[in-house]
Amino acid sequence: MKIYPVVMAGGSGTRFWPLSRVRHPKQFLPLVSSKPLLVETLARLKGLAPPGHTYVVCGPSHAAMVRRLLPRLPSRNVLVEPVARNTAPAIALAAWVIGARDPDGVLAVLPSDHHVADPRGFRAVLQRAAKLARAGQLVTVGIQPTRAETGYGYIRLGAPLGEGAFRVQAFVEKPDPVTAAEYVSSKEYLWNGGMFVFTARAMQEAFARHLPDVAEAMERLAPRIGKRGFTAALARTFPRLPSVSLDYGVMEKARNIAVVPGDFGWSDVGSFAAIGEVRPQDANGNVAVGEQTLVLDSAGCVVLGSGRTLVVLGMRDTVVVDAGDAVLVIPRERSQDVRQVVEALRLKRLTRTL
Amino acid sequence: MKIYPVVMAGGSGTRFWPLSRVRHPKQFLPLVSSKPLLVETLARLKGLAPPGHTYVVCGPSHAAMVRRLLPRLPSRNVLVEPVARNTAPAIALAAWVIGARDPDGVLAVLPSDHHVADPRGFRAVLQRAAKLARAGQLVTVGIQPTRAETGYGYIRLGAPLGEGAFRVQAFVEKPDPVTAAEYVSSKEYLWNGGMFVFTARAMQEAFARHLPDVAEAMERLAPRIGKRGFTAALARTFPRLPSVSLDYGVMEKARNIAVVPGDFGWSDVGSFAAIGEVRPQDANGNVAVGEQTLVLDSAGCVVLGSGRTLVVLGMRDTVVVDAGDAVLVIPRERSQDVRQVVEALRLKRLTRTL
Repeated sequence: MKIYPVVMAGGSGTRFWPLSRVRHPKQFLPLVSSKPLLVETLARLKGLAPPGHTYVVCGPSHAAMVRRLLPRLPSRNVLVEPVARNTAPAIALAAWVIGARDPDGVLAVLPSDHHVADPRGFRAVLQRAAKLARAGQLVTVGIQPTRAETGYGYIRLGAPLGEGAFRVQAFVEKPDPVTAAEYVSSKEYLWNGGMFVFTARAMQEAFARHLPDVAEAMERLAPRIGKRGFTAALARTFPRLPSVSLDYGVMEKARNIAVVPGDFGWSDVGSFAAIGEVRPQDANGNVAVGEQTLVLDSAGCVVLGSGRTLVVLGMRDTVVVDAGDAVLVIPRERSQDVRQVVEALRLKRLTRTL
Repeated sequence: MKIYPVVMAGGSGTRFWPLSRVRHPKQFLPLVSSKPLLVETLARLKGLAPPGHTYVVCGPSHAAMVRRLLPRLPSRNVLVEPVARNTAPAIALAAWVIGARDPDGVLAVLPSDHHVADPRGFRAVLQRAAKLARAGQLVTVGIQPTRAETGYGYIRLGAPLGEGAFRVQAFVEKPDPVTAAEYVSSKEYLWNGGMFVFTARAMQEAFARHLPDVAEAMERLAPRIGKRGFTAALARTFPRLPSVSLDYGVMEKARNIAVVPGDFGWSDVGSFAAIGEVRPQDANGNVAVGEQTLVLDSAGCVVLGSGRTLVVLGMRDTVVVDAGDAVLVIPRERSQDVRQVVEALRLKRLTRTL
């Protein structure tokens, strides 16, 4: 059974300003280790699939960076979305491109900007999901919740399918705190981590049923895959596709959906606060990055330095980020509000570092 | 009556790191306005004395900067201490140099790195002090306390001398908080702001009585003042003088000491917290300096930017300073602990920005 990881690197978030920029979004930042999250994501696949079977989907402005960061990835395995159209069209592109090569190959769609503390456990879960996928299921990986998180969607478990897998009863939206606590204590819900495993054939059929416009467009493109003129044809087709997520456009509507629970130290690295959880901490729970960074008499701080001297003294639960040309100071519990910072900079026309 | 301001610019504090450096101490920083404190100090003297009567005392490594910042000051009015020996020898140097020019001239010794909100009131107080000085008194200016400050020395008032002046009953050390509160409520104490007014002749006599070694050394140098060889002779003499403050060496011992109370919006600009008091604040009590500085949803913060983008969101009573090559984040109430930061950087051998 061949597995084709499809790493989704089309994101363009602003939650890591001043580190992230329009041309340099989160997946290209070394947020958890000294390597960019995208590079760590590919390294994690070692043993699951060789580089020749691995694909990365990204936007046109990031393709060169993807190729530079991943020199072992064949250049044709970088699938460039001509314009951003959310995840469903991007995954359709992968399903038809890989389907042309191996219709029964199992695709494992994976975010490029998450963290996994236990890569071996992660690969084992994907192997199990791949087995289910071979049987025609559209499989999602559900993350065992560790807290009543309100920032994620949840997956409600249905009937057991054997080998630890379940039917999916429902995908549910981000809950309020009370509902999130109920979900976690019920043990009937998992986090939706945005990982999907399926054969090219099964996903093509699912698109034909639930997003027929997308399927028809891809069928028309299919004869040109791997041939001259494909890129130009894709550039004409893609902008006309609906902008819709795979969750909403396919997974929530399809019947043959299964979930495999996973517990491998997952984090979506959703904000600077999350970096405080996945990076090594000192005795007082501070994360300090940078050779010229000094955190004194502080607790629970996330301090990310550039090459410059950066000193934090006497602070609690504060995020301090120096990106070289811009500095941000924000309470750790307000890490999500970095978006507001970017908005405010736009309004004030201080766009030099966006 | 001629007044000769003597501005003491020999300080080398570390309380404003990362803005202040060994080669660029506080008096050269634009902490309160866009001009260095030293330049503001000289500007404040307009109407009191012309540049030709104004002197600045500083160390050898700062003389060039003093001359560059104060182009209207005659070069010979920059009195260079060959080595730092605290204030008494520096003031003796001024008393003998100015005494050679005008023995009955009134010197007004002033710190170079303080702030005065009401320069007109400040000059009026110095004029009053100068009148007393002409009568042979060694006069200090006492600042009307506005809070139970533990960071300053206090002056205990003695018998009234008329025209709002008093004998000095005692100079007292920095008090603990309880004592400071007693001092302030008693109305018998003023802050010692380090300003002294006296004739050259009276101070020379006071040195002869209380610091005779210093007086004798200056007497031996006196014949060379204004002549070739003075600098070299001073360089041989100065290192042998005792390192002692004027307060301790002369003022606390002399009998003919008077104090003139002053209330002219004085601040010693002793720390980053003080900048929050003397700079214009927004509606939430934040001070934000820098065209690329943005303070959002915060209160009581002091945010000093360089040319780079600097954003503070959701913080309270925090000092954030970006000096271009170094950044400091510290609670406002711990502003005094910047010294600890400099010590820690030395210990860690991160001395690039000291």
